[in-house]
Amino acid sequence: MVPTTRMEDKIYIISGTNREEAVSLAVSHIYKNEFKLLGMEAEIIDLRDLPDNYLAAALYENAGTHQGMVDMRQKMKEGQKFLFVVPEYNGSFPGVLKAFIDGLKFPETFTNKKCALVGVSSGVQGGALALSHLTDILNYCGTHVLARKVRLAEIGKNMKEGLITNKLYNQLINWQINEFLEF
Amino acid sequence: MVPTTRMEDKIYIISGTNREEAVSLAVSHIYKNEFKLLGMEAEIIDLRDLPDNYLAAALYENAGTHQGMVDMRQKMKEGQKFLFVVPEYNGSFPGVLKAFIDGLKFPETFTNKKCALVGVSSGVQGGALALSHLTDILNYCGTHVLARKVRLAEIGKNMKEGLITNKLYNQLINWQINEFLEF
Amino acid sequence: MVPTTRMEDKIYIISGTNREEAVSLAVSHIYKNEFKLLGMEAEIIDLRDLPDNYLAAALYENAGTHQGMVDMRQKMKEGQKFLFVVPEYNGSFPGVLKAFIDGLKFPETFTNKKCALVGVSSGVQGGALALSHLTDILNYCGTHVLARKVRLAEIGKNMKEGLITNKLYNQLINWQINEFLEF
Amino acid sequence: MVPTTRMEDKIYIISGTNREEAVSLAVSHIYKNEFKLLGMEAEIIDLRDLPDNYLAAALYENAGTHQGMVDMRQKMKEGQKFLFVVPEYNGSFPGVLKAFIDGLKFPETFTNKKCALVGVSSGVQGGALALSHLTDILNYCGTHVLARKVRLAEIGKNMKEGLITNKLYNQLINWQINEFLEF
Repeated sequence: MVPTTRMEDKIYIISGTNREEAVSLAVSHIYKNEFKLLGMEAEIIDLRDLPDNYLAAALYENAGTHQGMVDMRQKMKEGQKFLFVVPEYNGSFPGVLKAFIDGLKFPETFTNKKCALVGVSSGVQGGALALSHLTDILNYCGTHVLARKVRLAEIGKNMKEGLITNKLYNQLINWQINEFLEF
Repeated sequence: MVPTTRMEDKIYIISGTNREEAVSLAVSHIYKNEFKLLGMEAEIIDLRDLPDNYLAAALYENAGTHQGMVDMRQKMKEGQKFLFVVPEYNGSFPGVLKAFIDGLKFPETFTNKKCALVGVSSGVQGGALALSHLTDILNYCGTHVLARKVRLAEIGKNMKEGLITNKLYNQLINWQINEFLEF
Repeated sequence: MVPTTRMEDKIYIISGTNREEAVSLAVSHIYKNEFKLLGMEAEIIDLRDLPDNYLAAALYENAGTHQGMVDMRQKMKEGQKFLFVVPEYNGSFPGVLKAFIDGLKFPETFTNKKCALVGVSSGVQGGALALSHLTDILNYCGTHVLARKVRLAEIGKNMKEGLITNKLYNQLINWQINEFLEF
Repeated sequence: MVPTTRMEDKIYIISGTNREEAVSLAVSHIYKNEFKLLGMEAEIIDLRDLPDNYLAAALYENAGTHQGMVDMRQKMKEGQKFLFVVPEYNGSFPGVLKAFIDGLKFPETFTNKKCALVGVSSGVQGGALALSHLTDILNYCGTHVLARKVRLAEIGKNMKEGLITNKLYNQLINWQINEFLEF
């Protein structure tokens, strides 16, 4: 099958936490590189770049007015394909990721767009519930979710120097990317 | 059956958004009054009181250090029974509510405590998925959730001057409170 | 946008209960007619046609051997697009629907296929949780789920003589079908 | 803390599949023995005992009429505490388990009763989504679910001759049982 993604369709990779840890961002870079190898352009949206006063000054009545959010919000509005890298916090995704979604332009950011989900955890779950919850939210907002969701559990054991060392994980990532390009 | 809740067990009601809207807070006050009528003490924890820079300065490595959070965090640690009032945002609960949970002391805040959930929405759902997601999270953290979850859908039509005008809703609230006291 | 569904791609509509009630089947026929008006062929798979001894004789080691299931199972294997009509039973989908899925050929029936979901309920939920659970299952099995899920709540009030009388419901059905053809 | 469960409160353990495999039933027996060691009486309800024509003759209009179900249904109505042993099938619980629930007496079987959930899987999930779905259903029906849900993943590696060989698993089972007795 010929990929339906055109070269000009940039993929936005959302690194789903503002925590100063390397893992979600490292996984985002791994995906970015994989897309690049396939000739696709990808850009990382890093939630560490959210304004410090995001909760107070960039939501609800203030949505769209915070200067520190203009770029990020515009990219989410224009992008057609998203890949969410989702660390598991307290049995679901980080609150900051949902807060980020709550501040986006609705419904333009979401309607009939497509996304893929990757869960990351230090424990054995790989964010199974986090990805289920996020699927509910994205579907509600109008975004289609790729069936194959990759769960990178026990990431501490399975990553080294910014690379995934687990063979199965690399295969799952590869399958997911290929399916995502045709989705 | 005799209620198992003792007079000295204060109930904390979490008003689950930092949005400057009246509804979640109004519903929190309705519950507070109902508890009071039954001789129970209840106190509202209002997420509008979160520090403006909460996401940047009160999570992860900083959890527990922000002066603006000391009280709130202590109450959540000491409280034994919680009632969450949860408005529906984008098919789930507000990101700020999960971010609040992400900043609490784990596991002391949660282990074997008990809570009840109330969903509030302008639309017809009443937060069904929001309450399901929140149940997953609270259960994961170790907190038991009362089976009966009240969903106050189309709240605009069913509330007037800070009171619920829908008879069924009032009955559901009443049942829930009685079950919660025996839970 | 030109629909990506070709005339030869028959859509299978799964009427998701074996109960002798008219509603799910009636909704299935409504969808079938809508597809027909758009020049698409659709066929209903009616769970009332499952063998009486399905649980005992058509699952696990027996999967694929029951003569009464050969046709149904073959259609599910060959079909590329499915529409599930899902009545709400006890806060989720009917057990018989999941039992039906448990008896299908895995993974051929599911991998990279596409489906749309419709919830039906006498109560106010419209099967919100049922559709969320079913999305988890279908995604797990490899099938992509259309973001827009139609929830036909309080169906008793909103249907007459086999037709939907609620204008909004008809519009939602229409939108869903159009999005499904392009999905 | 003194257990709130009295000796006379028998615990019903639902072995959640009708499949002729040993695992769910073996796990049910492990729990039964643990309860016994604590002086509690437990009885297993084995879904293999469902009538062969259950789907056709024991649901909906026929609920409660099938002779082969009279006992099982009565026990579920009288029992106050349930433990569900739930194997993971296709990303959730077995259809037969939900079909069993669909055939019980509603609401008497469920209202304000208490249950605990155990997931069993050959894969790495341990039924995380299965237990989430089942929690939604049981809460909807009125039954409180113990926060701690035990997930016995990769059960093939972690069980031998009817005993759990994984130390952590045994500890989790122990904690769960103790919490359940006080729940």
